[in-house]
Amino acid sequence: MKKEIVDFFKSLQDSICNALEKLDGKAKFLEDLWQRGGGGGGRTRVIVGGDVFEKGGVNFSEVYGKAPAFLAKEIGATGEAEFFASGVSIVIHPRSPMVPIIHMNVRFLALGSALNEAKGAFPPSGETGKGAMWFGGGIDLTPIYVVEEDARQFHKMLKEVCDRSDAAYYERFKKWADDYFFITHRNETRGVGGIFFDHLKPKNDAEFETLFSFVRNVGNTFIPAYSPIVNKSKSLHYSEKEKKWQLLRRGRYAEFNLVYDRGTKFGLETSGRTESILMSLPPEVNWDYNSIPAPGSAEAKTLALLKKGHSWAG
Amino acid sequence: MKKEIVDFFKSLQDSICNALEKLDGKAKFLEDLWQRGGGGGGRTRVIVGGDVFEKGGVNFSEVYGKAPAFLAKEIGATGEAEFFASGVSIVIHPRSPMVPIIHMNVRFLALGSALNEAKGAFPPSGETGKGAMWFGGGIDLTPIYVVEEDARQFHKMLKEVCDRSDAAYYERFKKWADDYFFITHRNETRGVGGIFFDHLKPKNDAEFETLFSFVRNVGNTFIPAYSPIVNKSKSLHYSEKEKKWQLLRRGRYAEFNLVYDRGTKFGLETSGRTESILMSLPPEVNWDYNSIPAPGSAEAKTLALLKKGHSWAG
Repeated sequence: MKKEIVDFFKSLQDSICNALEKLDGKAKFLEDLWQRGGGGGGRTRVIVGGDVFEKGGVNFSEVYGKAPAFLAKEIGATGEAEFFASGVSIVIHPRSPMVPIIHMNVRFLALGSALNEAKGAFPPSGETGKGAMWFGGGIDLTPIYVVEEDARQFHKMLKEVCDRSDAAYYERFKKWADDYFFITHRNETRGVGGIFFDHLKPKNDAEFETLFSFVRNVGNTFIPAYSPIVNKSKSLHYSEKEKKWQLLRRGRYAEFNLVYDRGTKFGLETSGRTESILMSLPPEVNWDYNSIPAPGSAEAKTLALLKKGHSWAG
Repeated sequence: MKKEIVDFFKSLQDSICNALEKLDGKAKFLEDLWQRGGGGGGRTRVIVGGDVFEKGGVNFSEVYGKAPAFLAKEIGATGEAEFFASGVSIVIHPRSPMVPIIHMNVRFLALGSALNEAKGAFPPSGETGKGAMWFGGGIDLTPIYVVEEDARQFHKMLKEVCDRSDAAYYERFKKWADDYFFITHRNETRGVGGIFFDHLKPKNDAEFETLFSFVRNVGNTFIPAYSPIVNKSKSLHYSEKEKKWQLLRRGRYAEFNLVYDRGTKFGLETSGRTESILMSLPPEVNWDYNSIPAPGSAEAKTLALLKKGHSWAG
C-alpha cells in the first residue's frame, strides 16, 4: 500500500509540473533531490522567473524513521515509535497581482504498528496494537483581489470532487479550511479558502480504498481548478498600486506559513529540508506599518471577503 | 514599584526616540496610542522613510488582566490568575545594508500575588502565596555584513554594563542570547548576538533594586552602543549586490520573529495590538529558493560568523 501511495504522489508531481510549465509557457521546473538524515528524502521541484509564475514549488517527499514526540503522542506511545509520511506540497506565487496564489497538499501518514499494515494487507479490525494511519490534505486559493465568480467556480469544483466520495465532505472540509487557513492575529482568512481535511483514518481495506481514491481525486483537481483562473487573469493589466497590494498580501501569506501552518511546523520539527519547506514563502514581500485600504477601494472590498463562513459553492 | 518601573520605561522610550531622530536627521516618530480589550495598552512609536532608518519601532506597553494559560502555569495556578507586564521593545531596520539591524527589549512581569507586592512594599520573604515577578530583556545586533571590530565594540559595551551588576552576568547572558537568537532550521544565529536574560526574580527589596538597576543600565546602553555603529556605516557606498543580500537576510529576520520569538508569541497570544507587535518585521524582504553565497565572498564570510559561541568581548 505504501508503494501504491508513493507511486501516485510521484506521478501527481510529474503531471502537475508538466501542466504548470505549459501554463507558464517559458520557465521550467528545476529539480533538487534530497535525503533526510533520519530516513527518506524528497524531490523538490521549483519554478522561478516565469512569465506567469514568479516562484513556485511542487514538492514530493517520503520521510520515515523515529517519530518526533508530538507524533508519538498521537498513538499514546511512551517509548519510541516509528513513522512514515509521504505527500505532495504545492505553493505557487504568480508574478501578476491579478493571478491568485494557490496551495495544495495531499499526504499520508502511518505510525507505530500501522506501518506494517500499510506495507501489506490490512488487518480485518484495523485496530491491532498501537498504531494509526491517516490521509490528509487541502487546497486553497489566495487571490490578491477576490473575483467572486472565480472563487465560486473554484469551490464548485471542490464540492464536486467531495460529493463523488461523500455528500457530507464538502461542507465539513470547507469549514475546516475556513478554520485552518485563518490568520488569527489579523482576524482574516488567508484567501477564499477551499477544503482541508486531516486524520481520515481507514478502519479496513475498503475504507482505505475509498479514502485513497478521494485523495487521488483531490490531487487530480489541482490543474482543472487552477488553470482556467490563470488563463483568465494572466494577461490583465495592473499598475504599481496593484503590485504594492500584492506585496502586502504576500506578507500575510508569510505570516500564516511561519506562525500557523502545521505542514511547515511538521517539516521543520522533523528536520525536513528547510529550503524545500520554505519554498512556500513569497519571492518579494512588504510589511508596512498599519497599512489600511481606503474605504470603498478594491482592496477594502477584498479584505471584507476574507471572512470565515462565506458560502462560495452556492 | 509598578509605577516606578512604568515611569522608567516611558522615559526610556522618550529618550531613545529623540536620539534616533537625531541620528536619522530627517524622519520623525509618529505615535499611536492603543488600548487592550483585556486591560492596559501602549504607546507605539514608528519611524518610516528616514534617510537612515527605513522602518523602525520603539514601543512602550503596559498590559494587565487575566493571565493567559501559558503564564498561569508559571505559578502553578489552577484557576484564574492576574498578570501585569510592561516593557519597551525596539526593532530598527536601516535603509542601507551597511547599517546593522538592532533590537532591544526590557520588560517586567508580575503574576498572581506578586501583583500586590509589586504595587507596594516587598514582603520580607518575597515568597508569599502563589505569585512571581521577574525582569527580562535583551539586546542584539544583526549586521547584514559583519564588521568584526563593531561586533567586538558592541559586546564590550554590553559586558561593561553586565559587569557593573554581576561579574557572572555577561558570560551567562551572552550564551543565553546565542541560544535564544538562533534560527534552528537555518543553523544560524540571527546576527552577532548580544545579551538575553529572563526570569530574573528578586527575592527581596534589595534584590529588586539591584535587578531594576541592571535593567535600567541595559536600556540606557542602547543609544551609546548603536549610535557609533550607525554613524560609522550610514554613509558607506553600496550597490545592488549588497541590497539584495540585505533583502535575503531580512527574510531570516522575519523567520526568526514569526517562528521563534517569544515576545512576538506573547504579544499575539495575549491579544496585544498586532500592528505594534509586527512592526518588527522588515519593510521589504526577499525569499529566493536555495540562495547560497559564493565561497570566499563577503556574504559567505558573514554567514560563517553567524555561529553560536563566538567570543566577541575578548
